[in-house]
Amino acid sequence: MADDCVLVLGTGLIGTSIGLALRAAGRDVLLADADLGTAAAAAERGAGRAWDGREPAELAVVAVPPTLVAQELTRLQRLDIAATYTHVTSVQSQVQAEIEALSPDASSVVGGHPMAGRETSGPAGASADLFVGRPWVICPSAASRSAALAEVHQLAEDCGAVPTVVDALEHDRAVAVLSHLPQVAASALAAVLVPEDAPAVATALAGTGLADTTRLAASASGLWTEILTANAEQVAPAVRSLVAVLEDLAAALDTSAGPVDADRVRSLLERGNRGRALVPVKRGVRDSGFVAVAVEVDDRPGRLAALLADAGAAGVNVEDVRVDHVPGRPTGIIELLVAVPAAAVLETALGRDWHVIGSQT
Amino acid sequence: MADDCVLVLGTGLIGTSIGLALRAAGRDVLLADADLGTAAAAAERGAGRAWDGREPAELAVVAVPPTLVAQELTRLQRLDIAATYTHVTSVQSQVQAEIEALSPDASSVVGGHPMAGRETSGPAGASADLFVGRPWVICPSAASRSAALAEVHQLAEDCGAVPTVVDALEHDRAVAVLSHLPQVAASALAAVLVPEDAPAVATALAGTGLADTTRLAASASGLWTEILTANAEQVAPAVRSLVAVLEDLAAALDTSAGPVDADRVRSLLERGNRGRALVPVKRGVRDSGFVAVAVEVDDRPGRLAALLADAGAAGVNVEDVRVDHVPGRPTGIIELLVAVPAAAVLETALGRDWHVIGSQT
Repeated sequence: MADDCVLVLGTGLIGTSIGLALRAAGRDVLLADADLGTAAAAAERGAGRAWDGREPAELAVVAVPPTLVAQELTRLQRLDIAATYTHVTSVQSQVQAEIEALSPDASSVVGGHPMAGRETSGPAGASADLFVGRPWVICPSAASRSAALAEVHQLAEDCGAVPTVVDALEHDRAVAVLSHLPQVAASALAAVLVPEDAPAVATALAGTGLADTTRLAASASGLWTEILTANAEQVAPAVRSLVAVLEDLAAALDTSAGPVDADRVRSLLERGNRGRALVPVKRGVRDSGFVAVAVEVDDRPGRLAALLADAGAAGVNVEDVRVDHVPGRPTGIIELLVAVPAAAVLETALGRDWHVIGSQT
Repeated sequence: MADDCVLVLGTGLIGTSIGLALRAAGRDVLLADADLGTAAAAAERGAGRAWDGREPAELAVVAVPPTLVAQELTRLQRLDIAATYTHVTSVQSQVQAEIEALSPDASSVVGGHPMAGRETSGPAGASADLFVGRPWVICPSAASRSAALAEVHQLAEDCGAVPTVVDALEHDRAVAVLSHLPQVAASALAAVLVPEDAPAVATALAGTGLADTTRLAASASGLWTEILTANAEQVAPAVRSLVAVLEDLAAALDTSAGPVDADRVRSLLERGNRGRALVPVKRGVRDSGFVAVAVEVDDRPGRLAALLADAGAAGVNVEDVRVDHVPGRPTGIIELLVAVPAAAVLETALGRDWHVIGSQT
């Protein structure tokens, strides 16, 4: 065994990406997966070499589905495979408790959660720079040795991530609000469109707002049942805070007991404006650093490419593109998100050949 | 007065777009606005000619802010300006009641709501084809004459829209769920990030899901206070249906009284999947007709344009583009939404020069 050897158990999207990043950093990587084809695909992509089931490593990274983490991690411990053990689970407290119940030595374990991913799975979607610049949350338990913490810290740095040591419970509370609650809100909103004892609402009159707000509702129900269940103690109160805000609004709009309380309605909407301003939309920069320049285009192949080529020719870096899919319309609105100082340049340049509708922060 | 003359009172985005569409259809259009500069800008854009305050018209379209509609429409009636009167208000029942209370003759009034718009305001954003292919909801009252209904039907057709006659209450119920509830859900979710009596949640760990789900929370609070207030009787029960779904989920996740009810959690998520499948994302076509092909690109100016040019060269029409803004990452994932049969063609064509991650329906 090389001193820097890392065993990655589970070569899905995250495990394979870790392997690729560590290989790029010059470390020796062993790969294993219950699915031999998946492990072979990861090795083929250059994420490391096949593990023989015995070779020891400095660090073992358990990157298997949440419900299997404690069992697999402690199995490796009983084989005495590594000096330090970590995992990459999206909910930390529950798996920490499970490991403590099963582990022969909890001092060699430090949990982790790289805050990165994409909507694909498997080694094909993996990338050496999946973690670059992203937080890698590290959750030591009370039993964790400092040498084990240092080893996991190094892992995060070798992957280009920003190591962030956080208490497991604090982590779980944060993701409950920032990740799990948006999923729940989107699913619940979409669910309202399918009343259980009535015909579904005709959605022909829907615009783009409904499409954006319910996008997450298409997520895999099996995986999300696991995540919400594992973080139930934090998600339940987060859902109830959302319910409290909604009930307050429903009460303000309730005309059965008196007139509508427009001030309370406005106050909620303004609080929503303030909350939206806290949401990072690009590299931690808030919405306010950017302007959306709206352009009308006819809906023919190649128009979007031509528009972006013209923006590029003007020397403007387009940070994001949003196509307004207005159902039924032959033309579309394309919004180009650019840094505030570039907006005027872009409007002038595009104004020659395009119908620029305007800018909006 | 020409037989086909239309007076448009209020030359904002909608009024000016109606003028442009009617001019394109060869009708005579008179324009007026309390803001003379706005009326002049609309005339300049070719939406019609200035109204002198006396010239009669066949039809008067009142396109002023919701709270002013009844007052302005009935003022025109008392001047006996037109044979038929309509408006373009996003909530119908309340304005219908207000008009009936003030009007000297409710039989000449038929309400309307073109289901189109964009996130800009004023004549600059107006377009002759804003309404093309979109539903134009028409809400006659019990008092409306059939000749007046026919006149408004013609207006919708002249604008290229699809006239859809619906009871005012039915319209208000539909938009409460399809338009007003997504706004409320986004605002409430964003509001939870700003607890009133505690420090705000640190949002550095947020991913893209939160950004999408809260996008509407940036909407103008003044306008939305008017809309929600005007449709309070329909929005309040819609909010309560959402609350009921969320409370059910919170109860299923509540561990204080027993174990988590994972089956109920999964059942809600699956119902969300079914609801999402009902949401039109492009020209009334559901998500399922399209595939998102994901490509990794480095974040340099011009890369998006180059990618789209390559897609165009392959003969593939890209229906939508989604840029994955992963905060802190130097590379990005771009998803190109294409019709299912085109996905394989696109993957093969792009595979030569790009890192195609995969496709996903």
